[in-house]
Amino acid sequence: MAGNSFGKYFTVSTFGESHGIALGGVVDGCPPGLELSEQDLQVDLDRRKPGTSRYTTARREDDEVQILSGVFEGKTTGTSIGLLIKNKDQRSQDYSNISDRFRPGHADYTYQQKYGIRDYRGGGRSSARETAIRVAAGGIAKKYLKQVFGIEIKGFLSQLGPIKIDQVDHSITNTNPFFCPDESKLEALDEYMRDLKKSGDSIGAKISVVATGMPVGLGEPVFDRLDADIASAMMGINAVKGVEVGDGFDVVEQKGSEHRDTLTPQGFTSNHSGGVLGGISTGQDLLVHMALKPTSSISVPGTTITKQGEPTDIVTKGRHDPCVGIRAVPIAEAMLALVLMDHCLRHRAQNALVHSETPVIPAAAKS
Amino acid sequence: MAGNSFGKYFTVSTFGESHGIALGGVVDGCPPGLELSEQDLQVDLDRRKPGTSRYTTARREDDEVQILSGVFEGKTTGTSIGLLIKNKDQRSQDYSNISDRFRPGHADYTYQQKYGIRDYRGGGRSSARETAIRVAAGGIAKKYLKQVFGIEIKGFLSQLGPIKIDQVDHSITNTNPFFCPDESKLEALDEYMRDLKKSGDSIGAKISVVATGMPVGLGEPVFDRLDADIASAMMGINAVKGVEVGDGFDVVEQKGSEHRDTLTPQGFTSNHSGGVLGGISTGQDLLVHMALKPTSSISVPGTTITKQGEPTDIVTKGRHDPCVGIRAVPIAEAMLALVLMDHCLRHRAQNALVHSETPVIPAAAKS
Amino acid sequence: MAGNSFGKYFTVSTFGESHGIALGGVVDGCPPGLELSEQDLQVDLDRRKPGTSRYTTARREDDEVQILSGVFEGKTTGTSIGLLIKNKDQRSQDYSNISDRFRPGHADYTYQQKYGIRDYRGGGRSSARETAIRVAAGGIAKKYLKQVFGIEIKGFLSQLGPIKIDQVDHSITNTNPFFCPDESKLEALDEYMRDLKKSGDSIGAKISVVATGMPVGLGEPVFDRLDADIASAMMGINAVKGVEVGDGFDVVEQKGSEHRDTLTPQGFTSNHSGGVLGGISTGQDLLVHMALKPTSSISVPGTTITKQGEPTDIVTKGRHDPCVGIRAVPIAEAMLALVLMDHCLRHRAQNALVHSETPVIPAAAKS
Amino acid sequence: MAGNSFGKYFTVSTFGESHGIALGGVVDGCPPGLELSEQDLQVDLDRRKPGTSRYTTARREDDEVQILSGVFEGKTTGTSIGLLIKNKDQRSQDYSNISDRFRPGHADYTYQQKYGIRDYRGGGRSSARETAIRVAAGGIAKKYLKQVFGIEIKGFLSQLGPIKIDQVDHSITNTNPFFCPDESKLEALDEYMRDLKKSGDSIGAKISVVATGMPVGLGEPVFDRLDADIASAMMGINAVKGVEVGDGFDVVEQKGSEHRDTLTPQGFTSNHSGGVLGGISTGQDLLVHMALKPTSSISVPGTTITKQGEPTDIVTKGRHDPCVGIRAVPIAEAMLALVLMDHCLRHRAQNALVHSETPVIPAAAKS
Repeated sequence: MAGNSFGKYFTVSTFGESHGIALGGVVDGCPPGLELSEQDLQVDLDRRKPGTSRYTTARREDDEVQILSGVFEGKTTGTSIGLLIKNKDQRSQDYSNISDRFRPGHADYTYQQKYGIRDYRGGGRSSARETAIRVAAGGIAKKYLKQVFGIEIKGFLSQLGPIKIDQVDHSITNTNPFFCPDESKLEALDEYMRDLKKSGDSIGAKISVVATGMPVGLGEPVFDRLDADIASAMMGINAVKGVEVGDGFDVVEQKGSEHRDTLTPQGFTSNHSGGVLGGISTGQDLLVHMALKPTSSISVPGTTITKQGEPTDIVTKGRHDPCVGIRAVPIAEAMLALVLMDHCLRHRAQNALVHSETPVIPAAAKS
Repeated sequence: MAGNSFGKYFTVSTFGESHGIALGGVVDGCPPGLELSEQDLQVDLDRRKPGTSRYTTARREDDEVQILSGVFEGKTTGTSIGLLIKNKDQRSQDYSNISDRFRPGHADYTYQQKYGIRDYRGGGRSSARETAIRVAAGGIAKKYLKQVFGIEIKGFLSQLGPIKIDQVDHSITNTNPFFCPDESKLEALDEYMRDLKKSGDSIGAKISVVATGMPVGLGEPVFDRLDADIASAMMGINAVKGVEVGDGFDVVEQKGSEHRDTLTPQGFTSNHSGGVLGGISTGQDLLVHMALKPTSSISVPGTTITKQGEPTDIVTKGRHDPCVGIRAVPIAEAMLALVLMDHCLRHRAQNALVHSETPVIPAAAKS
Repeated sequence: MAGNSFGKYFTVSTFGESHGIALGGVVDGCPPGLELSEQDLQVDLDRRKPGTSRYTTARREDDEVQILSGVFEGKTTGTSIGLLIKNKDQRSQDYSNISDRFRPGHADYTYQQKYGIRDYRGGGRSSARETAIRVAAGGIAKKYLKQVFGIEIKGFLSQLGPIKIDQVDHSITNTNPFFCPDESKLEALDEYMRDLKKSGDSIGAKISVVATGMPVGLGEPVFDRLDADIASAMMGINAVKGVEVGDGFDVVEQKGSEHRDTLTPQGFTSNHSGGVLGGISTGQDLLVHMALKPTSSISVPGTTITKQGEPTDIVTKGRHDPCVGIRAVPIAEAMLALVLMDHCLRHRAQNALVHSETPVIPAAAKS
Repeated sequence: MAGNSFGKYFTVSTFGESHGIALGGVVDGCPPGLELSEQDLQVDLDRRKPGTSRYTTARREDDEVQILSGVFEGKTTGTSIGLLIKNKDQRSQDYSNISDRFRPGHADYTYQQKYGIRDYRGGGRSSARETAIRVAAGGIAKKYLKQVFGIEIKGFLSQLGPIKIDQVDHSITNTNPFFCPDESKLEALDEYMRDLKKSGDSIGAKISVVATGMPVGLGEPVFDRLDADIASAMMGINAVKGVEVGDGFDVVEQKGSEHRDTLTPQGFTSNHSGGVLGGISTGQDLLVHMALKPTSSISVPGTTITKQGEPTDIVTKGRHDPCVGIRAVPIAEAMLALVLMDHCLRHRAQNALVHSETPVIPAAAKS
């Protein structure tokens, strides 16, 4: 119970179901004096928005966010910020057929068992639609992080099914519907997705998020480590099944002599750690990767059970992304922004008597 | 700041440095009436204890835990439980040589920059020694989970460097110093570690934790999901760089038709999800994997910088595990126990008016 | 920062300013299965509503609350509940004259100094208008407490300026604009308030809240005591300067032999404690009293300073209650409901192995 | 459950029973660089210590606190600070006679009912002995507040039974066993207490705490107000039944024209508010008062019931203070220090873009 808030110093509390009246939330802890308007948040909402390409659900939502409080004469006042996004294209009839049965791979079964009741329309609260408000809240954090701390966050697709991305050119990422930073892979992705759609099946993906301009010192050991909070934030995104910081699972076969990043007066010579040591940021780029499972809603017929436990078959109609991983890019950026904002405020509260703000070495942004 | 507490309903707050007077903590939220003694906690402390084999640090610590409060006439009273473990074999002189330089791969640099001061003796608070108290606290949770909810937690080594474990036989795990559940791999591990020690280098590892007897319904979306809290708990363990639930990163190349676990009146037919759907437990076995980086303290010479930013060379003497991953097994079990205890209490607080405790299908413990 | 959430297990997060677009909030932790509609919440909102009598501000607000999520087919689903109340009668021009000066007794000065910026329209976030959403959230708690635990909460006026209330007849409280439970005092109150309005001044008040049907065992020592949380909730209501539980400040001159409530097989023989011992509810009626300062906005001219620190005079026009204490009655009821709801869920999470639900004596509801 | 932590940014978690092995706690969030030693904390522990005069319990405890972590080479490191106070003079036999019966006015009944089990020795966790560790933790906050923010906290007795203190001379407070700041009342107090002891009865008291050197801007509306947190902290002290800020309950009969504090370029002309407006500190002295009930343990015979609900008589032997209010002075100071420390860190985290640190008027420390 009461699990709908994220962050300790910069706290976001959200509400809303896929086919409810609206999604909304409270952003609490934003410092005063930040210039803020709906337009600042709309940019990322539009990137996450459904119906933008033939590779995402056909559901049409403007996802227009409204700022209801906390901003006066164009600036934040330090009081809580109310956010609201009205739902428009609900089409509940699409889902009436699954009101009495559990879609495999979805949260239908677990919600029904946990609560004894569930809003089955489009998955209700368990739908990724809920993440729209995370993206809006993350937009506030993103703007503050960039303006006050010089931190920038960029996400991208690193793998889709068998197709691995080799080169990362951030200028490419937002020019294509896949958030793919590697121009040479666009055609392959296009072809793969076209075939996938025909087959009615779905595919998994790996996405990455990097934060540049990182200060050294973010993270509060031993439990509120920066990497621990990032892991929670990313694993908390719908469909994510794995999270890595830096080299991630590659470290299993690495030797210590190979993994440890050497410090020099000019900075670190490598970034295997992904910018975190002992749960605290090193000042290097922050590197995070995550794995997203394939969409569970597919038109490939399957079997399942009803609420009464009777066997039945199921074909998920409705409108779905063949690869949920793609649209998770702006969501992952938003969640990383929320974590970093929280930790920037926490670190600022410390203000050690003997604290030297300036690191003894320049932050070597080696990725 | 203030990042040394874990859990919302079952809260553990810890203190202590590697070479300080003692490690300790407060376990708050343990229900009354549980029979509890030091012996209950010592079992796992002994499993984590250093100096037990030639593959772990030579530091000798009894790690004898004392229960200072919260237990009366052999039973918990519902009040907070104070835990204390005195440090014995400190040997601070081993570390004097690194007081003015940053060990690569360690938290020396980040602690110094964050706090402007650090206890350099054995890494101070950043040392894995701190986890002893997590293991003690986890022992309380483990006992309650087993007795009241029938949940059992078992960890094991799944890979060490190039050596992958194929079979999992829990009866083998605690019979060898590697927590290896596969008898056929013991000789290879022994040989590999012997050579590794000679070379003075270290190696990474992958370990796994499974929880059996899971109830359906644990987890509080959308942020306090069971998998999100597990990710935080595991990534918060020293040296962990990656966390997976269920199929983890394998999902990247999976099709939806392949990944989604089918429900039948007899239970789930597979467990790709790892026992979590929509952030809520399915009642299946909970499957968690994590990657641990190789020990950064190695006797292979390297270069680094001093506190003043001057270049210098470094050879980490002192006493260290060539593979920190091994002893992380009981730590990972303890952290999972803390997460599950927290969520069992949270779920119990809900007690829905319409809530049916009995799942419509039996929990198919398919792993 | 981030101080706009109340409660740990039943959490209410709010936003909104006096003259903003809307007030709203997120109610997180409401168990599933509770029948809930806007009408359930409107009752108390109407009791708090301005413009209902000639003794309250002339501002006209319907205070119509909208439930935006968390309720499906008439019942709560266990997911977070979004609440929204649109502002209507804003009249910002009333306040333009105080944009550059600090109203004495108000939060104008402290908000300006703390945040460096403030929404001066009607006091912005510091206005008691914000409490409308607390009343709405409290309505959810009130319904659950009554239906599931049999707890009822009743507030009333106990003193207005020199006029002390002697008899408490709850059937009278809601029949008059003063929430006065003593019919014999209505005329005196009416006369006093009429004179007060003429004089353009304001007056303080003492109000009380009682909870009946209390279970024994609510409260989590040593810090999250029931009485400590109540004190926070009540002192957190605008204009409250003092809080008492049971005999309150009368205990200063009491002897131990006089104060301590004797237990008998039939129950307690008195209730000096106000239903709390050691921070835990006794099962007796819960008795809470609070003092509210006189409205700071009065038409009696005064002097103050400008934002630049220059002396200036001030006459607060605008629309105000001559006694803010009166309308605080439903607010205090709501806050007590939030505290009790939080503690009922917390206590339920405990579920001691040896716990006997039935007290050894009947709860003697002696007030 | 889990109610043994206080504070959000500066968090104190405690454990320990009256007759257990030890009392202890974790202080989490103390900024690094503060010079700290046991001596800093011992001063207040000695003021709270029992057995110091013939007006307090004869129990002899040195209350020697040990700092177990978080301090290195005489300075705090920013990591959590472990505190320990061993119990010495337990004399459990004193209490064996009340193991099966509930002492009226004590928490025996409520603990038994809540937990189904209780440590009856000296009240176990419900004993005021637990506050020793609060005083130790508060000592850390006190030192930091004074050194970094220039805030000083002074408590004193304002009334004991019928004896009201008229003059406050802080230089007198610590020269007498009553913490009485008024020399002219010492003889009367001495006489009153001597007679009281003869009678075997106990008496209530009112104590006050003032904080000087307050910055403007502490407090986080709308729920984490400074006054709300203070109310929680004070009501959470054993035996406290009422809390006031500034004029407290006197405001009930005050007119607005009389209560509101006028601002002038030279500062406020009065301090009816007690230094808090809208839940935020004004920079004036912070004034807090509280009422403590008479000790429930008296040698005047009374009746009560057994655990089985049978009637029985009771005479509380053992060793007790005839007026618990007296020794609450250092405890109240400590709790106020914890609240202010928490809010100083919270306010520092804000660091508004447009924030002007310097108030437009000097803080007029008018009390």
